[in-house]
Amino acid sequence: MLLNRRIPLLFFVREIRREALLVFLFANVVVLVKFSLGLWTLTIPIAIPTLLGTCISLLLAFRTNQSYDRWWEARIAWGAIVNDSRSFIRQLIMYLPDGPDRHDLVRSFVNRHCAWCYVLGDALRGHIIPDHLTNFLSPAATKRIMESDNKPNALLLAHGESIRRLYAEGQLTDYQMVQLSDTLTKFTDSMGRCERIKNTVFPRTYTFHMQVFIYLFAAVLPFCFDADMYYLDVPLVTLIGSAFILIEKSAIQLQDPFEGRPTDTPVTTIANTIEINLKTMASYEAIPKKADALTYYSL
Amino acid sequence: MLLNRRIPLLFFVREIRREALLVFLFANVVVLVKFSLGLWTLTIPIAIPTLLGTCISLLLAFRTNQSYDRWWEARIAWGAIVNDSRSFIRQLIMYLPDGPDRHDLVRSFVNRHCAWCYVLGDALRGHIIPDHLTNFLSPAATKRIMESDNKPNALLLAHGESIRRLYAEGQLTDYQMVQLSDTLTKFTDSMGRCERIKNTVFPRTYTFHMQVFIYLFAAVLPFCFDADMYYLDVPLVTLIGSAFILIEKSAIQLQDPFEGRPTDTPVTTIANTIEINLKTMASYEAIPKKADALTYYSL
Amino acid sequence: MLLNRRIPLLFFVREIRREALLVFLFANVVVLVKFSLGLWTLTIPIAIPTLLGTCISLLLAFRTNQSYDRWWEARIAWGAIVNDSRSFIRQLIMYLPDGPDRHDLVRSFVNRHCAWCYVLGDALRGHIIPDHLTNFLSPAATKRIMESDNKPNALLLAHGESIRRLYAEGQLTDYQMVQLSDTLTKFTDSMGRCERIKNTVFPRTYTFHMQVFIYLFAAVLPFCFDADMYYLDVPLVTLIGSAFILIEKSAIQLQDPFEGRPTDTPVTTIANTIEINLKTMASYEAIPKKADALTYYSL
Amino acid sequence: MLLNRRIPLLFFVREIRREALLVFLFANVVVLVKFSLGLWTLTIPIAIPTLLGTCISLLLAFRTNQSYDRWWEARIAWGAIVNDSRSFIRQLIMYLPDGPDRHDLVRSFVNRHCAWCYVLGDALRGHIIPDHLTNFLSPAATKRIMESDNKPNALLLAHGESIRRLYAEGQLTDYQMVQLSDTLTKFTDSMGRCERIKNTVFPRTYTFHMQVFIYLFAAVLPFCFDADMYYLDVPLVTLIGSAFILIEKSAIQLQDPFEGRPTDTPVTTIANTIEINLKTMASYEAIPKKADALTYYSL
Amino acid sequence: MLLNRRIPLLFFVREIRREALLVFLFANVVVLVKFSLGLWTLTIPIAIPTLLGTCISLLLAFRTNQSYDRWWEARIAWGAIVNDSRSFIRQLIMYLPDGPDRHDLVRSFVNRHCAWCYVLGDALRGHIIPDHLTNFLSPAATKRIMESDNKPNALLLAHGESIRRLYAEGQLTDYQMVQLSDTLTKFTDSMGRCERIKNTVFPRTYTFHMQVFIYLFAAVLPFCFDADMYYLDVPLVTLIGSAFILIEKSAIQLQDPFEGRPTDTPVTTIANTIEINLKTMASYEAIPKKADALTYYSL
Repeated sequence: MLLNRRIPLLFFVREIRREALLVFLFANVVVLVKFSLGLWTLTIPIAIPTLLGTCISLLLAFRTNQSYDRWWEARIAWGAIVNDSRSFIRQLIMYLPDGPDRHDLVRSFVNRHCAWCYVLGDALRGHIIPDHLTNFLSPAATKRIMESDNKPNALLLAHGESIRRLYAEGQLTDYQMVQLSDTLTKFTDSMGRCERIKNTVFPRTYTFHMQVFIYLFAAVLPFCFDADMYYLDVPLVTLIGSAFILIEKSAIQLQDPFEGRPTDTPVTTIANTIEINLKTMASYEAIPKKADALTYYSL
Repeated sequence: MLLNRRIPLLFFVREIRREALLVFLFANVVVLVKFSLGLWTLTIPIAIPTLLGTCISLLLAFRTNQSYDRWWEARIAWGAIVNDSRSFIRQLIMYLPDGPDRHDLVRSFVNRHCAWCYVLGDALRGHIIPDHLTNFLSPAATKRIMESDNKPNALLLAHGESIRRLYAEGQLTDYQMVQLSDTLTKFTDSMGRCERIKNTVFPRTYTFHMQVFIYLFAAVLPFCFDADMYYLDVPLVTLIGSAFILIEKSAIQLQDPFEGRPTDTPVTTIANTIEINLKTMASYEAIPKKADALTYYSL
Repeated sequence: MLLNRRIPLLFFVREIRREALLVFLFANVVVLVKFSLGLWTLTIPIAIPTLLGTCISLLLAFRTNQSYDRWWEARIAWGAIVNDSRSFIRQLIMYLPDGPDRHDLVRSFVNRHCAWCYVLGDALRGHIIPDHLTNFLSPAATKRIMESDNKPNALLLAHGESIRRLYAEGQLTDYQMVQLSDTLTKFTDSMGRCERIKNTVFPRTYTFHMQVFIYLFAAVLPFCFDADMYYLDVPLVTLIGSAFILIEKSAIQLQDPFEGRPTDTPVTTIANTIEINLKTMASYEAIPKKADALTYYSL
Repeated sequence: MLLNRRIPLLFFVREIRREALLVFLFANVVVLVKFSLGLWTLTIPIAIPTLLGTCISLLLAFRTNQSYDRWWEARIAWGAIVNDSRSFIRQLIMYLPDGPDRHDLVRSFVNRHCAWCYVLGDALRGHIIPDHLTNFLSPAATKRIMESDNKPNALLLAHGESIRRLYAEGQLTDYQMVQLSDTLTKFTDSMGRCERIKNTVFPRTYTFHMQVFIYLFAAVLPFCFDADMYYLDVPLVTLIGSAFILIEKSAIQLQDPFEGRPTDTPVTTIANTIEINLKTMASYEAIPKKADALTYYSL
Repeated sequence: MLLNRRIPLLFFVREIRREALLVFLFANVVVLVKFSLGLWTLTIPIAIPTLLGTCISLLLAFRTNQSYDRWWEARIAWGAIVNDSRSFIRQLIMYLPDGPDRHDLVRSFVNRHCAWCYVLGDALRGHIIPDHLTNFLSPAATKRIMESDNKPNALLLAHGESIRRLYAEGQLTDYQMVQLSDTLTKFTDSMGRCERIKNTVFPRTYTFHMQVFIYLFAAVLPFCFDADMYYLDVPLVTLIGSAFILIEKSAIQLQDPFEGRPTDTPVTTIANTIEINLKTMASYEAIPKKADALTYYSL
């Protein structure tokens, strides 16, 4: 997530340099063709590229909206994980009866749950950091989870098996067990939501349309200027085209929020917050500090 | 679903060639009429076709939005199926008491559920692949399902009857049985959502409006050029009209995501993922591999 | 619902002929006034009607969106009825204990529920077809329902009283009875959703705005042409105005989906589907066939 | 709610006369300043006010959308009240055991609930009509409710206390009591939704932006005409400005749907419908008639 | 929240003075460059800045929409807190059995809950007002809460522990306890929703795009005027640019509704309303008065 700090200009330029260059070259080619073929007298009304520009703007508005919605939905899913994590531990504190192992039981769930939060973030970004498991779980448990194909799902199943054991031992009533099972279902839903956003490619046809319209725009504009104004065309096409491409690139960044980029949903930071919250609730002595972002973004 | 791979240009051209040709011919007819009737001096301000173009753009923005929403809703329904499938099996693992047949019971649900996922995808695309039933079910069960009109619904009913038997045998409490019944209700809802998207034709009046405006645009534009610029009209109308039609065609593809086209919701791929997840949860020895897409799309 | 078949052009023309004629006459009046008052030299820049056109386009975009949302919500409500109907019967099959009258009990609910689906559709369209009750209910029950002001609600209450009797007889547990009561609540919600859409008039001020802008447009446009181009004005205003009106009329059709028009939500067809599904689930011998649409729409 | 009847034109004119007059005067002042300062030769391209007009149109599109959403949400909240009211009484009919006072018990809930519906509508519109309490409740109960600050909330609490008494007497099981308590929670939610819409002022900055742009538009437009066309400016600015203001005023009416205006959510009519429904369900002998609207709107 | 009172103009001017000045200076620089480099004859068609303006308008429409949604979502979260608070206390009144300490028990929950509402608002705005705790809690409880990192979460946990104690003492049944736990989950969700809005920075790229387009607009516009109209450029660019910036600034204010600004969600006012409601429900003798806003906004 980009923070409220100074963002280096290079961050924006890097994104669009290749496409901007292509548009620049294309605009030059069109002007050259115009001259070499002697199409001097050919004048298209300026309203035509304006119309194309309006259409590009509307395509971008659509694109921007949908990308923002994906990004916001990813953030909502992680917000739900924060809420449900707190509720999950509070439910356990409320439901588990007094007894010698009550404290340890709650903590074993807290530990496994922190691991789940970190590992889910890692899995979405495509590489598991082993520390995120070994920090919270025993070596045996870590090994069992690492063998699974979908590691976060395996952790939720382990949650379920622990609850099942508590129910079999009579520490939870029928009804409480089912409520905890419902909370696990909520975690499954949030996890599935993130996976859906991660795995669904945004319809690629819309990027293609954008390109069609930008190149049509770049091809038509030179014919709207008088012949002696030819030098105006290339900078205008390049600048306006680049501005359009800049917006589209931002949309593309937003729509894929689990790629380890500065515009990502800050899953590691959120997992860190959850860890602090849960450990406070379970009265841990050593509560980690809030990680501080060093640059203009947090991951 | 179109993947992040190179899409052949032909994929786009094939969609619009017929309509683009029609617009091309129509534009020629209008130009010919203009000349043959001697309407040389008739000049309509260019603002009129620009206004028509703005209106087309807004119609397309609406169309694109709604189509995207249908496509995204179909994906959400299948995402919910993924989540609920995992939760369903986890619930069974948590609720079923220890006993000699516990393992087999869970697996019988896993098998039937995998069949349901594949068959639902097949039913939405309009033809059932018998292997998707015989791979998971006994010949007798397969036969009973194949006789039903709505095969996925028959599978859910079979789930329900199995749960009823477990409850009658005292393996599930009152409360657990109702929770599992609720999970079946969620499957029914997701299935119904997909059927709704499949069976509801997008209001066809909007395609008609698009055509009205594009042909109005093509009819008015020739009268905006000076007589000696007549040769500009046909390519411009054809290019801009084709660009508009291209967007509409993409919207049409998106709005019907269960037709077996490259832009479909990848129901078979998702069913494959569910199969892997569930079999891992139930500790199968033989877990199928993730199917790899061979082309630029996955089905 | 309009099907994927050829729609007669007359379907569109019939909608707009009266308004198009009015705009045509108004445009003529304005041109006549211009000439009779000698306002030859008065030239308004074409940008003014273009601006009005842009504003009309945006109003139409708003209108189209909201109308589509109403239409889609009506379809969603009926989709929910399909899902909940299947779930309701599956719940009954799962909950009702073995016994001699189990089969008949399920069928009595299936019959009453089919009646509810058909009668709800009829009530929304404003006239009850008595066959839809007598086909499924005893004459006594039919008579009792026909006396009620809100017939679908009376049928749901009858469902509720049957469930109450089963609970009093001990055939359902406390918990199961409440779950079935929740499913009835879902039917009440879907029914209320449809009634809300039926009974809420879309803010009529927006149709008025549209007219204000179209007549402003028609009043200003003649003054944008040179005097010798006067004959251009009337056809342009009429064509563009009619195109705008066409879109608005389509929106009006969509926003009221229970009027017995071709663009309606196909409530009778959906009730037919539900009947087939439920009778299959309850193993009826005689299962009705899917009704086939004979024209370009289904009701 | 405006009905499908003829709306007097005065209804629209009354809304905008003050603002239209202001714009008219402002436009005159600008023209006078132009002449008195001798700014004859100053010509601004017409594209500038067109751009301003496009921006106004987009602001209006936003405004219209959000206002419609508030209005529709208010209607949805009242639709939910209709549904939940029916479900509440059906639940009571289903849950209450046979006994001599069963009939009277249901009716006491029906009466109190009708009072709640009417009083909620009154409270939202800002003045309680005492008849709406005395028609349904005993004088003692009326007095107790009238003392409360939030009368609808006090009625719901009275519902809750009655249910508590039934539970204490053993007429309701644990589970049924909690379900009825959940239904009361739904009423609380719908009530809170309406209060939220009533109490949240729409961000007033947007009305200010509209004014800034309309006055900019009115200030720039005179400089786009040739000097001899000065008389065109004032009527055009006034007409177009008034049309914009008309749309904004409609949005303002829609966004505050509990003010006792013709465009209100028809809360009294809906409460009347609920009364008829509930009294039919509880087999009252005297069922009130549907109130008929006498004018072009219903309240 | 801005109230329906006169807003000082300075409120708007203060927001944009810095950016407006920058645009003013930039416009002057561009005009100076044009003259000093002798680019007199360079004329760009006015359609180009119009296109840029259209694009800015669409970006602003997007921005405005999303900001409004955040602001409205914050208000919805607080509306849910109002509803759930009333339901929570009504549930307690309904569930707690008769007994000598019943009254005190309800009041201890009311007190702690009022503290939670005020402290949540404070925490979102970034500084806790100690009075909001000491007014409602014992010094010991206040101290324990102040030690926690997330104070509102600690208060909810204290709620949970009280409920647990009541359950252990047999004052609440299994089922009632879980229902109250669900209500606490709703509070956790609303709290998490507000924290999500507070902690998620709106994608900052969009502000950057706005600036790119406004400066492009300011750079291109001078070249659209004839040389003798140069003095028109600076005021036009400054006025239109400022109007655009004004809209963006309003969006920025709306999107961050917990900063202690006049446009904030009025969390303190809402907490005050909740306090009045809950104390009325629990029949307190001393019920605080509704705080009256003294200026044009309420906090």
